[in-house]
Amino acid sequence: MIRDTARANSHVVTILPQEDRLEIEEGENLFRFLVRHGYSIPSSCGGMGTCGKCRVLIHKGLKPPTESEEVHLSRAELDQGWRLSCQQRLNCDVVLEVPQIDETIQAKELLKQELHIALDPGIEKVYLELPSPGKEDQRPDTIRIQEGLRVERMAFPLSVLRKVPHVLRVKNFTATITKEKDRALDIEPGDTTGGLYGLAIDIGTTTVAGYLLNLNSGQEIGVRSQMNPQKSFGADVIARIKHVYEHKETGLKELQEAVVSGINRIIHQLCQTATIQPAHIYKATVAGNPTMLHLFTTVDPSQIDHSPYIPVLRDGTIISANELGLEINSEGRVYIIPAISGYVGADITAGVLFTNLHESSKLSLFVDIGTNAEIVLGNRERMLACSTPAGPAFEGALIRYGMSATPGAIAHVLLSGDSELSLEVIGNSTPRGICGSGLIDLIAELRKVELINEKGKLLTQDNLHYAKRVTPDERSQPQFLVSDGAKPIYLTQQDIRELQLAKGAIRSGVDIVLHEWGAGLEDIDIVYLAGAFGNYVRRESVLRIGMLPPFPLKKLKPVGNAAGQGAKLCLLNQEEWIKAQELAEQVQYFELSYYKGFSDSFIESLYFKGI
Amino acid sequence: MIRDTARANSHVVTILPQEDRLEIEEGENLFRFLVRHGYSIPSSCGGMGTCGKCRVLIHKGLKPPTESEEVHLSRAELDQGWRLSCQQRLNCDVVLEVPQIDETIQAKELLKQELHIALDPGIEKVYLELPSPGKEDQRPDTIRIQEGLRVERMAFPLSVLRKVPHVLRVKNFTATITKEKDRALDIEPGDTTGGLYGLAIDIGTTTVAGYLLNLNSGQEIGVRSQMNPQKSFGADVIARIKHVYEHKETGLKELQEAVVSGINRIIHQLCQTATIQPAHIYKATVAGNPTMLHLFTTVDPSQIDHSPYIPVLRDGTIISANELGLEINSEGRVYIIPAISGYVGADITAGVLFTNLHESSKLSLFVDIGTNAEIVLGNRERMLACSTPAGPAFEGALIRYGMSATPGAIAHVLLSGDSELSLEVIGNSTPRGICGSGLIDLIAELRKVELINEKGKLLTQDNLHYAKRVTPDERSQPQFLVSDGAKPIYLTQQDIRELQLAKGAIRSGVDIVLHEWGAGLEDIDIVYLAGAFGNYVRRESVLRIGMLPPFPLKKLKPVGNAAGQGAKLCLLNQEEWIKAQELAEQVQYFELSYYKGFSDSFIESLYFKGI
Repeated sequence: MIRDTARANSHVVTILPQEDRLEIEEGENLFRFLVRHGYSIPSSCGGMGTCGKCRVLIHKGLKPPTESEEVHLSRAELDQGWRLSCQQRLNCDVVLEVPQIDETIQAKELLKQELHIALDPGIEKVYLELPSPGKEDQRPDTIRIQEGLRVERMAFPLSVLRKVPHVLRVKNFTATITKEKDRALDIEPGDTTGGLYGLAIDIGTTTVAGYLLNLNSGQEIGVRSQMNPQKSFGADVIARIKHVYEHKETGLKELQEAVVSGINRIIHQLCQTATIQPAHIYKATVAGNPTMLHLFTTVDPSQIDHSPYIPVLRDGTIISANELGLEINSEGRVYIIPAISGYVGADITAGVLFTNLHESSKLSLFVDIGTNAEIVLGNRERMLACSTPAGPAFEGALIRYGMSATPGAIAHVLLSGDSELSLEVIGNSTPRGICGSGLIDLIAELRKVELINEKGKLLTQDNLHYAKRVTPDERSQPQFLVSDGAKPIYLTQQDIRELQLAKGAIRSGVDIVLHEWGAGLEDIDIVYLAGAFGNYVRRESVLRIGMLPPFPLKKLKPVGNAAGQGAKLCLLNQEEWIKAQELAEQVQYFELSYYKGFSDSFIESLYFKGI
Repeated sequence: MIRDTARANSHVVTILPQEDRLEIEEGENLFRFLVRHGYSIPSSCGGMGTCGKCRVLIHKGLKPPTESEEVHLSRAELDQGWRLSCQQRLNCDVVLEVPQIDETIQAKELLKQELHIALDPGIEKVYLELPSPGKEDQRPDTIRIQEGLRVERMAFPLSVLRKVPHVLRVKNFTATITKEKDRALDIEPGDTTGGLYGLAIDIGTTTVAGYLLNLNSGQEIGVRSQMNPQKSFGADVIARIKHVYEHKETGLKELQEAVVSGINRIIHQLCQTATIQPAHIYKATVAGNPTMLHLFTTVDPSQIDHSPYIPVLRDGTIISANELGLEINSEGRVYIIPAISGYVGADITAGVLFTNLHESSKLSLFVDIGTNAEIVLGNRERMLACSTPAGPAFEGALIRYGMSATPGAIAHVLLSGDSELSLEVIGNSTPRGICGSGLIDLIAELRKVELINEKGKLLTQDNLHYAKRVTPDERSQPQFLVSDGAKPIYLTQQDIRELQLAKGAIRSGVDIVLHEWGAGLEDIDIVYLAGAFGNYVRRESVLRIGMLPPFPLKKLKPVGNAAGQGAKLCLLNQEEWIKAQELAEQVQYFELSYYKGFSDSFIESLYFKGI
């Protein structure tokens, strides 16, 4: 991938600040190229030149702007060297900078969680000092190894078999075998038993996270996350599925390569930091929603996006790393965590596994809030699950000044005094927008002072607290001034509507699940809030806007990236993956959109009738 | 592989009589190219231009002869268009003819043997009529299939998983699953249960044979054999191993591709004749000597050719067809039959399996005569095996007028009258040379009339029968006129020496095995003669020259291509492959070259002391 000089008809792209050097074919679309190599390039048009988001800063090799760039970039930006990557087709070497939006603050905080579990990953390294062959000992190499391991049979995949004769003779018949049960995964000369690592992967629609663990000690030695490079093809699962069926020949492969490249970047960064060889990672576990896992395995997810929402696979499955293009040991075993239905995925299975809901005698509620909200209610006797489309409002989409939880985002809001707002901004920088948790806080606070009424209308009466911040927008709709810096930030009436739809979907889902179970609020022992959002949002605000029924505050327990934690459990202990399979099979899924009372319940839930 | 027009910088080679059309890069060596594509081109120099054997007849695209061609081809041949393929580097399209030496007469006769065994190949096709998904039935595709099959779990390799959603919807959720235990191998729309085939493969150093069987009926529906294309790299296993270590980067791969191309040609010919799809072959079993199986799997055999003769693998192993490049169903299961030692291979395991020696209470001797002779002595209690290097004399090499058992070869000789010879020529054509069985007959007959003495000397006294056929050759050594047609054929003194070495090696091997066991001739119930040679040779002659101890003639039982028969057993019944594994483990191998009395016994065996 990294060369000093490019071949004829290709050019070298140097990407700052990492100074990655990649070779690109002359005339190839730079946007597609970067995505294919695992860079997160924002885009909502998928490279059509219409959204203006895929900007890169070109330091060397700048060309005059295209028409589309003239439209989407200011004169000053063009002069600085900003261009849209989708408009670039290179005819010379270039040096460019990709805006760094990779690691979210949230992720950094959330990813660090300790697990306590017996270490039994199912993969082991055994160091062997074997006798050399001789006239009295003509055993074949593989038999010599088997007898050294004291096993009756050993399956040697071809790639390992091919290494055997050479490796055994490098250090005089001392060698280290890596194996999973009776299957050899690797052979190396001498003693390399120290190098045994695993990777837990959580493929979110928005963010991909990787956790590197030492499988000898169980210790976590690194965490990285970055945006899912598939975002360039569409913000949500529906848009990505659409990309697949609209690009029959290439779409599925493009999406697979994008996410695998992203994970491979994470792998290389983790390994570089920890100074370990990627080939010493022998096991990976993968959580993600069903669409993400179909795309990761290049299995067509097209049937998921329309009724009756049928995925291809649900059970856990084990795949060799080389079949997926994952750059760990080529024989490394990739454990796909089992899913529950077309919209309740391995991320939920892993999350429930982490909370131990499935082994508890008490009734617990598990809610994972994202573009879709998945809800699991149950105990060790029985579990019910459903999924409800919350929409992307919590992730900043469709909100006028919405943004993801990255530096510059208003993450928390408190009213103080009669007209002042206390804002918490990620990275303590000048606010650039508002993210999901900030939006919920803000609306909850405005409900408290009744500047927003029960129906969700932003009021304008002069006599109300904070009312002077309400002004008409360009379409004469009321808007609320959140921050009045160089770039003022407003909450619009439309934003409130979006939030109502999102929280209404979740609330009606929870209400229906409780109703189906026949449980009252008092029957619920604990409510797990999973996901980055669940961890970051203020629980009081969640209750105030009525996104959840009025549980006592102390019952709400944020559990962070429960999917990642569950994936780590499966990595550290092989029994956990089997438990995940049993768990997934036990859960009864019901389709909310077929539920008779859903529309009623949903409309009812739109109103702000919280505390 | 077949195109109508070639790309720039490449040309089309049309090969007669099949009219295969292949694309070749400009400047590529034609000899290497043909070998790589599975054609059997004779050569003993491996394309260096020094042996003159790799001739092809060029019909279109003829160039003036090179120096090497002037040396090795006559003026008439050059004028007809004969050229050496190793001297050709094409700069235009050519049409050429490869001399047809593919199918030996022997093979044709030998390959047809019937087997009687219970049909249980371990691979099955199941036709499913599944309910379509709906609001009341949201089961994932794979779960729907599993429940249709009434199995708890099913492993779907990625390639099958990727076909599932499309295939299920082609014919309204009717589909055929091919499976091996709980592993899916294929899914096809509708009912294709009729298309279930298997291939038994016997990779000989000289000849590769393929048997196509219907796994629904057990019926054999086709047989093909051809020369092992690896022959171009060397006649025996030692020469091929040498090629591997003398061409570190490429040698192993070249040899693997050569043999796989040869097998693929057989597959396509078999399928074309039987009008079946290669993708309907789901199982293959492979027999061969250890070096052949190392090369077939691209595993370095370098340690086999020197003491202590260590192979990499011995146990049976199962590989996916796509990993080997075998053009059957890409998920087809390729069962490598287990071997016994570095020189007693899967061909012997399969052969013994076929004779049932390992399950008999009586003591039997199994002898497979080739470049190496492998000997197994035993019964159901105990088995002993060894290998002895007979050299290539039986295959015609090193014999002045030697040739393989192909049309034109003298295959049998009888003395009639005082000076007449009765010759049996393969294909009833003009004799072109003499093959192994003819050589043994001839020498046995000349021993009978004592024109060859006990020490192997060709006598010249006038008073002996047939003596007038003995004349001095150009080095004043006696030679015996076998045939005096347009091209006279002689047996030379040196030829007799070569035969003595070969038969001496076998005889001493047999004697030592009997001695090790403590068995006398009378203890042996039956002597199996395996291999094409064993089937074709006259048993009386074998006994007369003393290649075997003086067993009663009726105890000698030719069993034809026992290796191929054993491979078919493993194909038809999965238990047989497991039995082969047990059998291979039971056999005690002993290294003849380390045996104390070997030299003595060998020298003793050189003499003609037969009946």
